[in-house]
Amino acid sequence: MNKQELLTKFYDLQKKLYAYAHAQTLVNWDGATFAPEKSVEGRAITTSILGGESHALTTSEDTVKLVEELQKIDDLELKDKRNVEVFAREVKKMTCLPMEEVMEYMKLRAEAEQVWVKAKTDNDFKLFAPYLEKLIEFQKKYAKYINPDAKPYNTLLDDYQEGLTMDTLDKYFAEIEKTVVPLNAMVAKSDILPKVKAIKERIDAKGFDKEGQEKLVDKLFELQGLPKDRCKIAVSEHPFTSGANCNDIRYTVAYHEDNLASAIYAALHEGGHAMYELNTNHDYIFTPIATGASMTMHESQSRIYENNISRSEAFNKHIYKLAKEVFPTQFEDISEEDFYLYCNYSSPSFIRIEADELTYSLHVMIRYQVERMIFEDGVDVMDLPQIWNKKYEEYLGICPPNDTQGVLQDVHWSFGLFGYFPTYSLGTAYSAQFEATMKEAIDYDGALEKGDLTEITNWLRENIHTYGKLLIDDEIVRKATGKEFDPSYYAKYLEKKYTEIYG
Amino acid sequence: MNKQELLTKFYDLQKKLYAYAHAQTLVNWDGATFAPEKSVEGRAITTSILGGESHALTTSEDTVKLVEELQKIDDLELKDKRNVEVFAREVKKMTCLPMEEVMEYMKLRAEAEQVWVKAKTDNDFKLFAPYLEKLIEFQKKYAKYINPDAKPYNTLLDDYQEGLTMDTLDKYFAEIEKTVVPLNAMVAKSDILPKVKAIKERIDAKGFDKEGQEKLVDKLFELQGLPKDRCKIAVSEHPFTSGANCNDIRYTVAYHEDNLASAIYAALHEGGHAMYELNTNHDYIFTPIATGASMTMHESQSRIYENNISRSEAFNKHIYKLAKEVFPTQFEDISEEDFYLYCNYSSPSFIRIEADELTYSLHVMIRYQVERMIFEDGVDVMDLPQIWNKKYEEYLGICPPNDTQGVLQDVHWSFGLFGYFPTYSLGTAYSAQFEATMKEAIDYDGALEKGDLTEITNWLRENIHTYGKLLIDDEIVRKATGKEFDPSYYAKYLEKKYTEIYG
Repeated sequence: MNKQELLTKFYDLQKKLYAYAHAQTLVNWDGATFAPEKSVEGRAITTSILGGESHALTTSEDTVKLVEELQKIDDLELKDKRNVEVFAREVKKMTCLPMEEVMEYMKLRAEAEQVWVKAKTDNDFKLFAPYLEKLIEFQKKYAKYINPDAKPYNTLLDDYQEGLTMDTLDKYFAEIEKTVVPLNAMVAKSDILPKVKAIKERIDAKGFDKEGQEKLVDKLFELQGLPKDRCKIAVSEHPFTSGANCNDIRYTVAYHEDNLASAIYAALHEGGHAMYELNTNHDYIFTPIATGASMTMHESQSRIYENNISRSEAFNKHIYKLAKEVFPTQFEDISEEDFYLYCNYSSPSFIRIEADELTYSLHVMIRYQVERMIFEDGVDVMDLPQIWNKKYEEYLGICPPNDTQGVLQDVHWSFGLFGYFPTYSLGTAYSAQFEATMKEAIDYDGALEKGDLTEITNWLRENIHTYGKLLIDDEIVRKATGKEFDPSYYAKYLEKKYTEIYG
Repeated sequence: MNKQELLTKFYDLQKKLYAYAHAQTLVNWDGATFAPEKSVEGRAITTSILGGESHALTTSEDTVKLVEELQKIDDLELKDKRNVEVFAREVKKMTCLPMEEVMEYMKLRAEAEQVWVKAKTDNDFKLFAPYLEKLIEFQKKYAKYINPDAKPYNTLLDDYQEGLTMDTLDKYFAEIEKTVVPLNAMVAKSDILPKVKAIKERIDAKGFDKEGQEKLVDKLFELQGLPKDRCKIAVSEHPFTSGANCNDIRYTVAYHEDNLASAIYAALHEGGHAMYELNTNHDYIFTPIATGASMTMHESQSRIYENNISRSEAFNKHIYKLAKEVFPTQFEDISEEDFYLYCNYSSPSFIRIEADELTYSLHVMIRYQVERMIFEDGVDVMDLPQIWNKKYEEYLGICPPNDTQGVLQDVHWSFGLFGYFPTYSLGTAYSAQFEATMKEAIDYDGALEKGDLTEITNWLRENIHTYGKLLIDDEIVRKATGKEFDPSYYAKYLEKKYTEIYG
């Protein structure tokens, strides 16, 4: 086959894989948002069968050969080259291990998740420990298969962000430690904190009905500038973003009557993820590069809308106005300033997913340090609870009262996800660097003041979103900001903001 | 392979086909209820690829051989025997035609549908006529492939209801003509009609907001006794029922502020379809017989809840009560009797899907007669508009002012669906016979009076629903009622009801 024939075959295959992925995504979306309770069994059968078909197609001899042929061609244009590269990574991941080992691992993971649920419920780390140990063993073996010459943890990091290494993260988290630990200590001792806490309690106590919150979230959708004909919102237990392609993206929000901020910022966060997918170059549709560059870059886009933009004093006023329109009674005695402080309440807590903007990175840093010790230093699994608690004491000044609120809190390890956590925080640091660049390139502050995000979204689309996976994170950061990734932007952002509010 | 091995292979294949069907059903459901406008292209690709995979699996040499092997075994138990039989019918339908002809037909159908839309919009039958002619030609050829010895129209009827023939329908529609034509003439001249019309106009003019209607429909869901953990309701342009299996069924309702009855009866109608699927024997799950026996039997179950039960004077009171709870202001001056008459307004109209209970069967009868002429008498396609209009004049006493409201109104023929229409009406006749049987077997009238459908639904489940496709319609009617199908039950039901109201 000549180049054109190979490419045609390749993109036909991608369309087929798209169909399977679309179907599976939708079955899961439906399960999380609409399907009746008893639909679990039927859904499990469908996803397992379609997943099997899709896996067989990806790992077939024919596919492997096709990828090899395409990789031999040295005059592919960039788009094709990257599509082949990105897909080849997938194929390699799926074919590097003997099938029996994969099957065994799948079984282990299913068991581990169930055991983790029980261990967390019963506060019984010992129960989970042997499974955790086996999961780590497998990940080490997997990393060696993928790249025998690399440090295993670097290989795992590379899975969630192409090119990410411990070098980058060590430097990044050193900056976090240096900046956030003292800021957090300052906030904890601040005279302002009791006042902000009282405002938060007063507002949360008012109660915000779900119907009103849904109306507000619809208004935020418009304020954020999301396209109604390509994006929709639903309700699920935990907020998430999903979708088939750049013309069909959805996200969910969860509503709690005693926490209005939760829905507001979940909506803006998921709206940021959605915006990224919606704005990837439409010419890439149905191909491997038609999605965000990495987990990290995705998080940078959700966080920039959630935090940099929507938790700023200038833009927060517009959210306040909309919230007051929907909840006039509740907002009778809430001032613009009250609302801004309410949205920026900060307090160290045990649970990562409930953490505020400031302390969030400390939670992630602890997980990074623990994972690094697991893969680099071969730390004994049984010592993890103690290590975990000591780090919370050291960095956040609080000690988890039990393992349920400590080392057992996150589901990730039971799924075999190691190296995933850092993306949650690193993206936030990207967003500070992007924000600083925008402040020079466009009238960023004016846009927030006006409450019109068009220019900001255009900048993000042209400099980040449109590339999809055509470039890797480092290249996008370099092109968009004219500099290498530099965590000091994030440090400066946090220092300025938290000193202004709590200093 | 021995019997057990063959059966295991067969049911594994069915599970795989279930997965494809589930995914496709869900993609379409999502498209009709939730997906953003621009999602059309991505959905088309997914359904066409999954449809192709599923078709390839159904028609593969391996599958054909498996079915042949299983058909040779003469000691299969009934459940297995019927599953093989039902699936073999599918395989035969898909393999009887050479692939090129199928592809050509698919192309024709896609074009025909578009042309039909334009022809209907422009009131231009001549535009659609050549496509209609080709579609008919193909259907004739297809029928000959399936069964060279049978009359083609009988073969088409058999597609939608196993065992249905023109003999049955000729007798049935003769009864309809004899009964409904004079009843309709009586209603049209009745002194009561202007009063009922005035009530309808008065009620519709009040306006019923969508939120309230949704609440009412939720209450009707409970009144009908549908299970919340296995069934859900959504909104779409046209009401329909869909689902993956007996643990995951959904239906939709459309809301019109100026027509409360529309949502009420759509909900009860689709709720009847849902109830049937929910109550098929759960042991059949993921197999070909795990669904309603036929289109006709399905319609009998939607219509029995919609008409026999919910348009009865006794049960209508309970709907009235719920509607008054939700819309207290609007219902201030609507009496129980007003509401009963409102729900039983009857008036001949041009459009089938807007027809009332009494005239509906006349619309279907006309379509049956026209299709019968097409396939039995070889009538000239260009004569259809004139034939159509004359029949409306003869049976309903009204002449369509144009083809848009006449012969061009239904989408079915543009899809190549011939022989489908009769099921819409025949099922209604089944429901009258089932109702008459229940009146003897259980305290049917007492149940309606109490507003508790438990006993009625139990009877329907045990005598009809549970069988799924294990038995064909004739067998189910015989077992459930102790008699052959007898259209006089329906005639008596209509005579009694419409004489009581309008006589």
